Amino acid sequence: MQLSLGEYIFRRLRELGVRNIFGVPGDFNLNLLDWIDHVEGMKWVGTCNELNAAYAADGYARCRELPGVVITTYGVGELSAINGIGGAYAESVPIIHIVGMTARAAQKARLMIHHTLGEGLDHAIYQSVSKPLSAATEFLWEEGSFTQQVDRVIEASFKTKLPVYLYIPIDTPDILIDGSRLDKPLDLTISNPGRESEEQEVVDQIISAIEKAEKPCFLVDLYTQRFGVTKDLREIVESTQIPAFTTPLGKSAIDETSANFGGTYIGAFTHLPSVREAIEGADLVIHVGTFPADSNSGGFSQNLASKGTLAKLHAHYVSLGDKKWEGLNFAPVVKKLRQRLQSQKLTVKNPTWFKHDAEQLRKLPQGLSGPLKQKYLWQCFNTFLKPDDFVIGEVGTSQFGTAAILSLPKNGGYYTQIFYSCIGFTVGATLGTLVARRELGHTGRTILFVGDGSLQMTVQDISTMIRNGFAPTIVILNNDGYTVERVIHGPARGYNDIARWDYSSLLKFFGASKESKHHLAKTYEELLSVLSDSEFQASKHPQVLEVVLDKYDSPQAMSNLVDTVLGKGKAAMQQDDQKNNRSRKVLDGTLTESGLSTA
Amino acid sequence: MQLSLGEYIFRRLRELGVRNIFGVPGDFNLNLLDWIDHVEGMKWVGTCNELNAAYAADGYARCRELPGVVITTYGVGELSAINGIGGAYAESVPIIHIVGMTARAAQKARLMIHHTLGEGLDHAIYQSVSKPLSAATEFLWEEGSFTQQVDRVIEASFKTKLPVYLYIPIDTPDILIDGSRLDKPLDLTISNPGRESEEQEVVDQIISAIEKAEKPCFLVDLYTQRFGVTKDLREIVESTQIPAFTTPLGKSAIDETSANFGGTYIGAFTHLPSVREAIEGADLVIHVGTFPADSNSGGFSQNLASKGTLAKLHAHYVSLGDKKWEGLNFAPVVKKLRQRLQSQKLTVKNPTWFKHDAEQLRKLPQGLSGPLKQKYLWQCFNTFLKPDDFVIGEVGTSQFGTAAILSLPKNGGYYTQIFYSCIGFTVGATLGTLVARRELGHTGRTILFVGDGSLQMTVQDISTMIRNGFAPTIVILNNDGYTVERVIHGPARGYNDIARWDYSSLLKFFGASKESKHHLAKTYEELLSVLSDSEFQASKHPQVLEVVLDKYDSPQAMSNLVDTVLGKGKAAMQQDDQKNNRSRKVLDGTLTESGLSTA
Repeated sequence: MQLSLGEYIFRRLRELGVRNIFGVPGDFNLNLLDWIDHVEGMKWVGTCNELNAAYAADGYARCRELPGVVITTYGVGELSAINGIGGAYAESVPIIHIVGMTARAAQKARLMIHHTLGEGLDHAIYQSVSKPLSAATEFLWEEGSFTQQVDRVIEASFKTKLPVYLYIPIDTPDILIDGSRLDKPLDLTISNPGRESEEQEVVDQIISAIEKAEKPCFLVDLYTQRFGVTKDLREIVESTQIPAFTTPLGKSAIDETSANFGGTYIGAFTHLPSVREAIEGADLVIHVGTFPADSNSGGFSQNLASKGTLAKLHAHYVSLGDKKWEGLNFAPVVKKLRQRLQSQKLTVKNPTWFKHDAEQLRKLPQGLSGPLKQKYLWQCFNTFLKPDDFVIGEVGTSQFGTAAILSLPKNGGYYTQIFYSCIGFTVGATLGTLVARRELGHTGRTILFVGDGSLQMTVQDISTMIRNGFAPTIVILNNDGYTVERVIHGPARGYNDIARWDYSSLLKFFGASKESKHHLAKTYEELLSVLSDSEFQASKHPQVLEVVLDKYDSPQAMSNLVDTVLGKGKAAMQQDDQKNNRSRKVLDGTLTESGLSTA
Repeated sequence: MQLSLGEYIFRRLRELGVRNIFGVPGDFNLNLLDWIDHVEGMKWVGTCNELNAAYAADGYARCRELPGVVITTYGVGELSAINGIGGAYAESVPIIHIVGMTARAAQKARLMIHHTLGEGLDHAIYQSVSKPLSAATEFLWEEGSFTQQVDRVIEASFKTKLPVYLYIPIDTPDILIDGSRLDKPLDLTISNPGRESEEQEVVDQIISAIEKAEKPCFLVDLYTQRFGVTKDLREIVESTQIPAFTTPLGKSAIDETSANFGGTYIGAFTHLPSVREAIEGADLVIHVGTFPADSNSGGFSQNLASKGTLAKLHAHYVSLGDKKWEGLNFAPVVKKLRQRLQSQKLTVKNPTWFKHDAEQLRKLPQGLSGPLKQKYLWQCFNTFLKPDDFVIGEVGTSQFGTAAILSLPKNGGYYTQIFYSCIGFTVGATLGTLVARRELGHTGRTILFVGDGSLQMTVQDISTMIRNGFAPTIVILNNDGYTVERVIHGPARGYNDIARWDYSSLLKFFGASKESKHHLAKTYEELLSVLSDSEFQASKHPQVLEVVLDKYDSPQAMSNLVDTVLGKGKAAMQQDDQKNNRSRKVLDGTLTESGLSTA
């Protein structure tokens, strides 16, 4: 069976489950892009720039639990995307980055072609730039190995849940190759070869620990969703009725309307004291998908099973108390655990020993009025969420607010990039999520919370959402600058200011129709009025809700974290800064170890 | 003398001549930024994102003939900037990229801090990402060597005219260090140590060659401006009265109103046949600042001194006919040549043997009317330019139009990134150029020509121009997509389409006052009317001129180049594409060797 390399690539990606590909065309990838149309069900989503394309592929991957695909052109394109690849690497998001390169003949001659780095240089030089940020790289050169190489990177991305690179010289996509490998499906199994008995051992010991525990619980973290065991875990929680908490990076892995959901735990900065007390009082914590980053753990302030047993189910090891199984991936263990629970009835002493009270997160004080503040902002939005909504929280105040306080609706989705913490990420990522959710047939709203400083980084691809017929709800937190940074350092300094945009012109500028509306809320009254508006609730067209906040106002969790680390109140900080007292040495290393999340 | 490391850095940069620094604040660089205010005459220009900050530093460096400085934060910031650094490396633009990092203590412990790549990883991992794109890197770790390290990267950037990196852990900027090195100025000499006699030899032989030649000329190229010998070369041209041509990357190095200016030469794609005939008929071509890239040389179609002598004065060698001096930098040679000419009267047989007729580039056909076309677009703008104007030509049709056809006014400036050819570059670069020109006291207008696809990449930092009180004239070529790519491949394909924005809302969205106007021109009549409007000419406020062109219309030089390479007319290409004839193999390596410039 003969087919072109280009067609082979897109057929394999389609087999993987991918239906949309992000990127920017460039003269070295145009002929590759032609082949997308040749594979049924496969589509191209062009973005305004490559960074947003990578972010979109990331947002797509998080939502689909599949690798996202981004195609860029040689040099100028691939390098523009690289920060998105870095973020995916950091937060274990699989992305297949395909780069169209110069022709092999031109490479051999080291011609000084545009997009290269200079005279007589190796055209493959950019591969050393991407290497630290990828789990595997293939550079197509010998025709005999093209199909193997393509399969290898796709499988590597799926198995490692990390970015991979595929470099394709421009003279190769149209080459006819032997496609007989297509008869053999891609190998997409995640397993621990030869270690089945150890997996069994772990399952036995976990079950035994659960049976013994008075107050067992799960803490669900990042790798759970990434390694595709969310459904398994939900079934385990459902059948055992053990309370399941989530970290910021695990949030939404457990349905927050489930009776077994315990709340979101961020160590010392957990919003509800009852949630913190509960999990910190548990005598067995099974931390599933462990991702021990500063910002995901309240600045390393998790205090788990201090007098009990802690189990960690990680992508690269599994541990229970003092025992550790190095190199054992947790995903097959979770699947085995689910199977065992389905075949035997597990006896749990006190299954639902803790009940999370989500109503506390929806409660608004009587007569709430006046200028909007972070203090009750998120509670207002909790009254707005509906089943099947998907929420995305940008880095900064949006992230701390949503992760700490948001109460997700039934079948609700959520993510925030709290570890890599790159401002601007969510605009591109929202596009990817919209595309993924359309593929999956979701009908709920997609709601982005983004600060003004973050939005300004990557704003242009809101036009791509509009162009592709999506209707996101974009909540802009307009607090006149980088508030998260003001909390950290130099609150009144000019570097934390940004340009003042007229956000009421945003949708028009980016080509939205007149049905697309901009709403402004400066007070609680105005916010609650917009949120109760039926047209706004319906979200049939792209819409913006601009929420105006004081530039020094930040979510409690965030200011607490900074105050704790700096050992002083925020007010004192501001005063200090105004005095311009240079002798104060802040941020001398303490803060950076604390888990503050910002770019 | 004790001072902080932060202050030391900014004092050295001020000594270099830098007065404005670009970048984006982030939690790992905030305390470094505090020190900017401590150095008189030094200012911070915050941008919307790091890519535009790097582009701004590049545009600043091109204009000031000095290194531009960009400061970013750890990981998320530095990686976002990296494509700008790549472009600077490719086109030999010095940039000092300073990155705020995690604290040394955190690095030693390999803490899983936000912005890192993951658990237990070396925090310095991003340094391997930037390595291929920089001439020197210093990572501050031992206090005893801080000042030496800072000096080394600054000097390396100045001498190599390439990007360099300075990595600064967050716990170091406030440290008091011994600043006695400040007594010794930075070493900013560009020389060929121990090779003065060879320099003399080259000068002798060039002078002798000039004396012998019937039709000598200069071809002025990229390195001339970069290595700061523009003024020397202009004096040489003035005193010898030898015609001086420029390449696209050398354009503006010679004053185009000078009687000795010969025109812009792009090999076979030179706009004026008389210019091409003249230089190709010269019997001595002294190619100063040689930069032999595909797109700078009309797809390697330069035909120089085929029956005469060709001299190449390059950053890394000098050659004259068959003789070559390897490793000899041309800049000291140009300075020696200028000195010799000032002390002796050189005899040139036919000094002004060719006269460039710039009027041809301003001539408009009688009764020019109807829809705007590339054919006379640039000639219209030639009638608009005034002394001291600075023109920036974005990659794509703007680049081919400006490089080939623009006739610069007295003291006019210009650049186009025709080698690295990254779309979106000029928006950030224009900001940098505006800043540089304000430093230099220029009063002329800064005019950006940018296509819609390019603009969409990096549009947000137009707001930074507005915020900083600049009044650029932004000419948007709205041709409904990536026209340069349509010419190359897949003219009617969806991947070459882009989102349709409402450019009339651009200035308002980005916070400009009501005095800022948007102008629309679809016909020659409308364009000429705007260009003759005195308010538009005055350019007192940021202004946009949206020029609407057919999506298949491209400058002659560009379509000629593609037609030549593909061996067929554009019309045939389109027809072919519409038939969707997949058997046609285009771009199989031939095109990429041709010099087509696009991202």
